[in-house]
Parts: sequence; structure tokens; C-alpha cells
Amino acid sequence: MELIDGNEIASVIIEELTTLVATFQGHKPCVAFVRVGEDPASVSYVRKKEKTAAKIGIESKLIVFPETISQDSLLKEIDSLNQDSSIHGILVQAPLPEHIDSRKIFNSVSPKKDVDGFNATNLGKLCQEDNDGFVSCTPAGIVELIRRKGIETEGKRVVVLGRSLIVGKPVGMLFLGKGSTGNATVTYCHSRTPDLERHTQEADILIAAIGKPQFVTEDMVRPGATVIDVGINRIPDESKKSGYRLVGDVDFEKVAPKSSLITPVPGGVGPMTVAMLMVNTVKAYEKTIATS
Amino acid sequence: MELIDGNEIASVIIEELTTLVATFQGHKPCVAFVRVGEDPASVSYVRKKEKTAAKIGIESKLIVFPETISQDSLLKEIDSLNQDSSIHGILVQAPLPEHIDSRKIFNSVSPKKDVDGFNATNLGKLCQEDNDGFVSCTPAGIVELIRRKGIETEGKRVVVLGRSLIVGKPVGMLFLGKGSTGNATVTYCHSRTPDLERHTQEADILIAAIGKPQFVTEDMVRPGATVIDVGINRIPDESKKSGYRLVGDVDFEKVAPKSSLITPVPGGVGPMTVAMLMVNTVKAYEKTIATS
Repeated sequence: MELIDGNEIASVIIEELTTLVATFQGHKPCVAFVRVGEDPASVSYVRKKEKTAAKIGIESKLIVFPETISQDSLLKEIDSLNQDSSIHGILVQAPLPEHIDSRKIFNSVSPKKDVDGFNATNLGKLCQEDNDGFVSCTPAGIVELIRRKGIETEGKRVVVLGRSLIVGKPVGMLFLGKGSTGNATVTYCHSRTPDLERHTQEADILIAAIGKPQFVTEDMVRPGATVIDVGINRIPDESKKSGYRLVGDVDFEKVAPKSSLITPVPGGVGPMTVAMLMVNTVKAYEKTIATS
Repeated sequence: MELIDGNEIASVIIEELTTLVATFQGHKPCVAFVRVGEDPASVSYVRKKEKTAAKIGIESKLIVFPETISQDSLLKEIDSLNQDSSIHGILVQAPLPEHIDSRKIFNSVSPKKDVDGFNATNLGKLCQEDNDGFVSCTPAGIVELIRRKGIETEGKRVVVLGRSLIVGKPVGMLFLGKGSTGNATVTYCHSRTPDLERHTQEADILIAAIGKPQFVTEDMVRPGATVIDVGINRIPDESKKSGYRLVGDVDFEKVAPKSSLITPVPGGVGPMTVAMLMVNTVKAYEKTIATS
């Protein structure tokens, strides 16, 4: 078993970006982080993104709205960011409060600034294999891990556990495409799939994105499989000061010995998501430069 | 074995639309058919669409450009159709000549008039399960067949043979969604899948959209499966005046006895594609009325 070290690979990408951004003359790339409310996990994610941006030399602008902001007001705020030519990328931190239609908000971000890749147009471009669009960060990060570890996908069986718009659906589409990390046979399983393990057991590459702590057990995994764990779940742990610890969707201790390559949680997909956000921001910037 | 009669189901939809369109006051829905060149199959498809529109009471406008039209000129023509408020829907008949980037053309059609559903934004909305968009006609037609025949999809295994942008990818996404014709476990197979038959043999619903005449043979199909044949292939047949006959991607004679439900070619998915184009055109019209 070999660990796929997301921190290490993300660091390499961040260094590459730092070198690239240093060559940019004049204005630097600038990303706006929009946060609604004070959810502790969101606060922490956005802070991590701000720090990474700063490290690379990407400017960022944090905009915080109260939990009570109306959907219309939020749409107007996003529109003014869409219009602001000093902002190259916009990230609206999920989850949003329940009274706001997240899909509507994500679709209101200009496709050209949608560095999160949640906009319908960018999702469609991903399906179209149109590199002009932005691929959402977690799926892009998963594929980048596979690419940089030199894991073959052509003709391989990829099983995606979960069908979310943000991870499951797009990551499967990426492995199905015709690129060097594509040409796989892709199966989507989810909560309504009977005999889940029958499918997961056949996976050469298993993507666990079902949002259930330690859901994937060793009997569900084929010996020698590559296991990518997208889950970030808090479970109670009295031995920790915080009273909890983070675990993935995979029962790591038991599954790891059976797999050939596996991502840990934390330190696997998580840091890659942040790194790919930065890649997208630099891409958004370069596109405005190319067309200005 | 029962035949899924696409002509019959399409007729019912066309009747429903005729009744609905008769209630529209003032301007009727109007769709523009854009054809480039004189490819006989394209001429015939567009003629069929014109006739069906006329039957329903949908106006149509046929615009034909020579095979030699430049991509830029075609883009300009589409833009003027986008601007024309008397046109509610635009269909650019595929295939386009090789010197034209089809994806670029399809993406240039306003998402609001994209009754073919090939635009990135509508493809993304399909993935997002956003009913506000237009679902491309062949996938929509397949799902409508399944719905109207009362075929259960929840927890069922759908195998999609083919990963085209126009059929394979979107139809799988539809069966993966959460609606009444969704919640299936979906596998995509294609030309790079080893042991194709291992996958197809497990399908409760098999969608053959690989573009190879009579590719699916009886050993590839599970007894009692529902088989949807999307292929339209010409094969030589000296007994026909034309010298050819149409066959699907399924070897119908041999597969039919093994299946529980199967679509014929012609008369299966084909007429549904045309019917769903009309459904989309009426929807485009209703959306302009709702917002005017």
C-alpha cells in the first residue's frame, strides 16, 4: 500500500503557480471569497484559501454577509463582482443558508469568473470536454492526483460512490472523457443502489464521495484498488481537545492494507481542492489578459 | 417480448402538443431550422421536423446555407436568429461540415432558444437537474419512452453503451438523477471498455448508442432486459430499391426474443427525438410568454 499524499502534490502545484504568478506584470490575479454567515467549517475553509492565495501571490478579497441576507441581495452583490474588472475569480463558499437557492447563486456567477466550476455552463463544458471552461475544484483535484501518480485509467473500471453535483457527477464525467486520464468505464452508485458492494468490489479506482463516515469497509474494496476518499466527516472523539476528529468516507485503517494506493483524510483530496481553486484563478486571470 | 412503439408514443405527444398549441392566442411558437449543405440524411431529417411542426401548429423557418459557409458567417447568422424575437427555438442540423467547429456553433445558440439542448449551459442544467433548461431531444425521448411504458428505474442497473455528448453522456445523467425516471445505477461503456459484454449482460435497461450496426448481439443481453436502440445505420441491401436498409446498434432479430421490451429501428427512438424537439419548442415559446 502506498499513500497518495495530497499535501505534497498540492505543495508542488502551489510552487508551480507561485513561479508563474511572479512572472505576471502589473495587476496580479484577484479572487473574491464570498461567505454567508459564520459556520465554523466555512470560516476555516475560506481562511485556508486566503492563506494559500497569499502564498502564491494571488490577491484575495473576503466579503462576508450575514446569515440573514436575502437571495436577491446576494444575487445583486454577485452581479457587482461579475462587473468588477479587478476581480478575476469569484468563489461563493458552500453551504449557503437554507432560504437561499444555492444552484441559483452558483449559476449567477459569471462563467468567466466561476473558479469553483459550479456554474451550469462550466459543468456543461466539462461534459463537452471543452478546456475553455472551469472544472470544479474537487473533481479536478482528484484527476490531478491520478495524473501525477501516473495511475492508468484507460480501460480501467472507475466506480463513483455518490452523485452530487459538486463531486460525484463531474468526476465520473472526467474519467469518461477522451483525455490521458479518461477512457475509463465509469459506474455511478449511490444511496439507491442495491448491493453497493458488488459494484465497489469491481473498481480499479474507487471514488468515495457519499458523505457517510467510514462507510467503505474492507469487504467493499478489491485487493489492489486505488481508493480516493473525498469525505470529510466529523465524528466524536473524546481523546481530542475539540471533542471530535475528521474521518473520510472510507474506513482507512481497514481498507488501506488492501489497497495499492489510497488518499488519507485529512491530507488527501482536501488540499488538492484548494490547489485547483488557485489553478482556476490563475486561468481566469490569464483569460482576461489574453482577451484584453 | 413487447415492442416499444416509438411512433405510437410520439403520436400521442404530438396530439397533446396540438391541443395545447391550439389554445395559444396570437403568435404561435416558431422554430428556425438551420441546415448547412445538402447531405441527404440531413435534408430528410429536417423535412420530417418541418412536417411535424406544421401538424402541431408550430411555425417553422428553414434556413439553408451552402456547404462552403465559413464558421464566422454561420456564427453571425445564428446570432441574428438569437436576436430575432419572432423565433423561439433554433435547431442547427448536425452533422456540420468538417471545417466548422460544431461545439462552438451549438454553444453559440442562445440557451433560451436551444431547443436541441446541445448548448453547454443546457447540458450543465441537465446535470444539475434544473428543469428550467432544455434536455437534448434523443435522451429526453428515451426517458419519455421509459416513463410512458411505466418501466421502473429506481435501483435498476442502466448500462449506456456510448459516451457521445448528444446521447450517451446526457442520457446516463438523466437516469442517475432523483426524478421518477432516475435513481438508477448507471454504467457507461464504450469503445475502450474491455469485456463490454460483462457489463451489458448486467443491464436491466441497456441503451445502445455506439453507432455500430447490429453491434449488440444476444449473448450481450440479459434475459428480460429492456433494450433501447439509438443507432440509425445504413447497411447495403440489394433487395431494396435504395440499395440499403436502416438498422440499429442492436441485432434486433436475435436480441428481441431475449428481451422483455425493445425499441425497433426505425420506429423506436427516432420519432421520439422529433417529438421531444417539438416539446422543447413549445417550452421555449411558453418561457418567452411567461417573461414578456
